[in-house]
Amino acid sequence: MKKIRLGIVGYGNVGKGVEYAIMQNDDMELVAIFTRRNPDEIFPVTAGVRVYKFEEAEKHKQSIDVMMLCGGSASDLMMQGPRFASMFNCVDSFDTHARIPEYFGEVDRNAQKSKKVCIVSTGWDPGLFSLLRGLGTACLPHGSHYTFWGKGFSQGHSDAIRQIEGVRYAAQYTVPVEKAVAEVRMGNQPILTARQKHTRNCYVVAKPNADLNDIEQSIKTMPHYFCDYDTSVHFISEEEFLKEHTQMPHGGFVISTGTTGKEDMHKQKIELALQLESNPEFTANVMVAYARATHKLYLKSEFGAKTVLDIPVGLLMQDTFIQHTIL
Amino acid sequence: MKKIRLGIVGYGNVGKGVEYAIMQNDDMELVAIFTRRNPDEIFPVTAGVRVYKFEEAEKHKQSIDVMMLCGGSASDLMMQGPRFASMFNCVDSFDTHARIPEYFGEVDRNAQKSKKVCIVSTGWDPGLFSLLRGLGTACLPHGSHYTFWGKGFSQGHSDAIRQIEGVRYAAQYTVPVEKAVAEVRMGNQPILTARQKHTRNCYVVAKPNADLNDIEQSIKTMPHYFCDYDTSVHFISEEEFLKEHTQMPHGGFVISTGTTGKEDMHKQKIELALQLESNPEFTANVMVAYARATHKLYLKSEFGAKTVLDIPVGLLMQDTFIQHTIL
Repeated sequence: MKKIRLGIVGYGNVGKGVEYAIMQNDDMELVAIFTRRNPDEIFPVTAGVRVYKFEEAEKHKQSIDVMMLCGGSASDLMMQGPRFASMFNCVDSFDTHARIPEYFGEVDRNAQKSKKVCIVSTGWDPGLFSLLRGLGTACLPHGSHYTFWGKGFSQGHSDAIRQIEGVRYAAQYTVPVEKAVAEVRMGNQPILTARQKHTRNCYVVAKPNADLNDIEQSIKTMPHYFCDYDTSVHFISEEEFLKEHTQMPHGGFVISTGTTGKEDMHKQKIELALQLESNPEFTANVMVAYARATHKLYLKSEFGAKTVLDIPVGLLMQDTFIQHTIL
Repeated sequence: MKKIRLGIVGYGNVGKGVEYAIMQNDDMELVAIFTRRNPDEIFPVTAGVRVYKFEEAEKHKQSIDVMMLCGGSASDLMMQGPRFASMFNCVDSFDTHARIPEYFGEVDRNAQKSKKVCIVSTGWDPGLFSLLRGLGTACLPHGSHYTFWGKGFSQGHSDAIRQIEGVRYAAQYTVPVEKAVAEVRMGNQPILTARQKHTRNCYVVAKPNADLNDIEQSIKTMPHYFCDYDTSVHFISEEEFLKEHTQMPHGGFVISTGTTGKEDMHKQKIELALQLESNPEFTANVMVAYARATHKLYLKSEFGAKTVLDIPVGLLMQDTFIQHTIL
């Protein structure tokens, strides 16, 4: 069997996760990594894999079936997604929810022109959580649909704290409010504000002589990221930070509750829960499953940008034989 | 907007559930019910809906977009599924897992010939649970995948008990073994037998003068249904039965646990839980969502039999606008 040949763009946490994920799937192989850093400073785990400069990707158009875009949404993908769609079938985990329509549009335009397939915004949210929100909405029209994140490490919020003057290291954990989760699970279909759903706990290592009060106020009043939430700020030592806050656990719930039947008398509940010891590695595993779908759609000439809502689950699986065994 | 016109074949618990489900979706309407009983004895809830004899269905080919097959798998669908596939787009909830390939094959042959679309084995298991088994398998190749049912009322097992001489009423509840669920949730990937995963609790009303010991032994030793499980049998009064055992709650879990990353050091868990106050009504709501997909695929001329693994979640939703809001 000819393996699906994958490339990785960006060798950070997600990129490394994709490399390990490819090793778990014997119908795939990693053929190259592209980086904006110095290729000589990158050491892939996979034997024989070459590392190239980002700008050299175009020369590898014939040898890569699907390119895995592993950069960050804000800094990398807004530019890389449309650019690589002109050259490769791609999978990414673009996760700035509000900008997905715009991003999708640009990737789609280029993918249609180049006759490539790009599945955008895979991973778990957007991604698996989007699938469950879709199923909940479709199957429980008399329902309410909730997403809770955490307890988990948020890369974006941690980065935002690190931008504040006087901050050396920062880790932000998003924590669902237990009372809200319990009320949702009861099927009461409450209306909840952002503050009622999640709290944000921040662990910060300050630079010497930094004004801790200033830092705390800057965090708590930060628009979009913190001002709409109950936020706690804990200053800790560098030693404690490096010991306790360098893992990236995450997870969360999508809960749909609704009613059916005569006079809506029966309550029904669908709940998806993820518990992840490594957020970037799980994201990577999901991306790699969608790479298989990307390749299959390309072989069927179904070009353009897609989201997880456009992809049958069967296309993620290694062969159709398995489908009968899991139905 | 032109509504999707649905028909119902079989007006039992699922058929009634489909009628209520259609009322929850303003892009659909129920146009007719077909029954093998006397149509004069059927009273639909929906104003103006006519009830016809089963044999008259063919005359309504032009006025029904999707036919909802609401009969039982063993008794009705093996015959009805292929037959209606020759005349209508169809949705069913065929749930005899072992016979799905055979059933799928027969429905597909007829649907290809008649240029219709039939989505078979929707509902929640097979159905939503199959989707999660597929996602788990694809996203966690170094993983194990478990399905637990209950605590819930099992129609098939209750029917099997009722076939025993001396039994008047029977209700069988499938109950997951808590120790097994806990071990799976820990991520230990245990190998579990049928007996280790579920127990079966039976509530039976015996006929006067029946031999209770005979009934209990007949249940506990019944092949396929009970002999591989720890089964308890409780004889109760008719009064208690009618008060406590006529609802149809059900539910269950699909749990995938696996490992990712360097030396498989990180545990990852995906868990879907359903908690249903009415099993047939939830099944019906899922079927109606798949009717929407059936109609869309028919308009795109993608004929033949399909399973839930072939259907993008986006096709279940009322319009594509919503898709951006749930991603």
